[in-house]
Amino acid sequence: MSAPKAVVLLSGGLDSATVLALARAAGRNCYALSFDYGQRHRAELDAAARVAAELGAVEHRVVSIGLGGFGGSALTDATIPVPESGTTGIPVTYVPARNTVFLALALGWAEVLGAREIHIGVNAIDYSGYPDCRPEFIEAFEHVANLATKAGVEGERFRIVAPLIELSKAGIIQAGLAHGVDFSWTVSCYQADADGRACGVCDSCRLRREGFTQAGVLDPTRYRG
Amino acid sequence: MSAPKAVVLLSGGLDSATVLALARAAGRNCYALSFDYGQRHRAELDAAARVAAELGAVEHRVVSIGLGGFGGSALTDATIPVPESGTTGIPVTYVPARNTVFLALALGWAEVLGAREIHIGVNAIDYSGYPDCRPEFIEAFEHVANLATKAGVEGERFRIVAPLIELSKAGIIQAGLAHGVDFSWTVSCYQADADGRACGVCDSCRLRREGFTQAGVLDPTRYRG
Repeated sequence: MSAPKAVVLLSGGLDSATVLALARAAGRNCYALSFDYGQRHRAELDAAARVAAELGAVEHRVVSIGLGGFGGSALTDATIPVPESGTTGIPVTYVPARNTVFLALALGWAEVLGAREIHIGVNAIDYSGYPDCRPEFIEAFEHVANLATKAGVEGERFRIVAPLIELSKAGIIQAGLAHGVDFSWTVSCYQADADGRACGVCDSCRLRREGFTQAGVLDPTRYRG
Repeated sequence: MSAPKAVVLLSGGLDSATVLALARAAGRNCYALSFDYGQRHRAELDAAARVAAELGAVEHRVVSIGLGGFGGSALTDATIPVPESGTTGIPVTYVPARNTVFLALALGWAEVLGAREIHIGVNAIDYSGYPDCRPEFIEAFEHVANLATKAGVEGERFRIVAPLIELSKAGIIQAGLAHGVDFSWTVSCYQADADGRACGVCDSCRLRREGFTQAGVLDPTRYRG
């Protein structure tokens, strides 16, 4: 019997690289899926391609979607500044319905591939401000996946696998390192430059830097300036 | 107080035109959303623009998504023929996870607009072969919408409105006619030509033609040949 297939959502950041490494370690044949949705930090798509290749994904696809046209987020709307100090509540970097859209597209590809798992690097701890990173959201989407699809109707189960959901950033870094991730391949910065160098001051950079400190390992991030 | 906003999924076909007319009749300010997903029947996008304008949508957007790249459906994959006689089970014209993807994108736009309703023309009767047209799917997605979004977290409710879900095709036609729809604006054919003329033999054409017959009204569809 061949290895089970999994679609792995791959942003090019630290979290999803770890998810891909864990899925490979669990014996999955991985189909990595990234999105070009008008995000400011396009360097992450280059990072995603590198991560997919280094970690042995069977295939890597980048699907373009016009999400940026809706506006409403600092990640897709150039008129909203990316915050450079701590914020409370739901951050302006929240992209409306992003994980719902990503999971829906992953579901479509999974169904065509005959994959019955979608792996996603959501995390309820560090990103508690994003509503679509909570366990109850993942469970609700899994229910939709099983109702929405031909496979679900025919009695097979789709699973949404979120292995990082309860981990700290330091825990994610340790898990990734233990499974062969070199985090210098990854880009987390919300405003990385074209070469993938990080600003060091946005929310995402701060969380990442603190994660390396807490994990007690050297931060391999390339910072600019 | 201004009229409530609704995002209306608009394919350019008969069903979604009726949904838009019903939403307008219910006093909604309508934001029509269509998708360019590599479907064979591109003439439906021209039809959608016409329908949106005729029925007074505030705005009409067409979002491009790379769904066609996944294949697996006769509607997006030129190597799979569109069936021209009755079929049983889930049709090959089923596009994997299509309504999940469309609702997810509608949710993103709704959140940015401050709309709390998404109107969709799914129908469980005539299209019973599509799993993502069933009432339990719509309910499950509504639950996702309320968990996924900032609005949901802040205690507002999203509603997924599916006014056609229990109607026959003839019933939909009667509802549309009663609310000002001219069905000559719409294109239902899975393989319409560039001018929007219908083949008359695909599943969608057959259902539509039978609907006009059963409704006892003249079929205004432009057939080719």
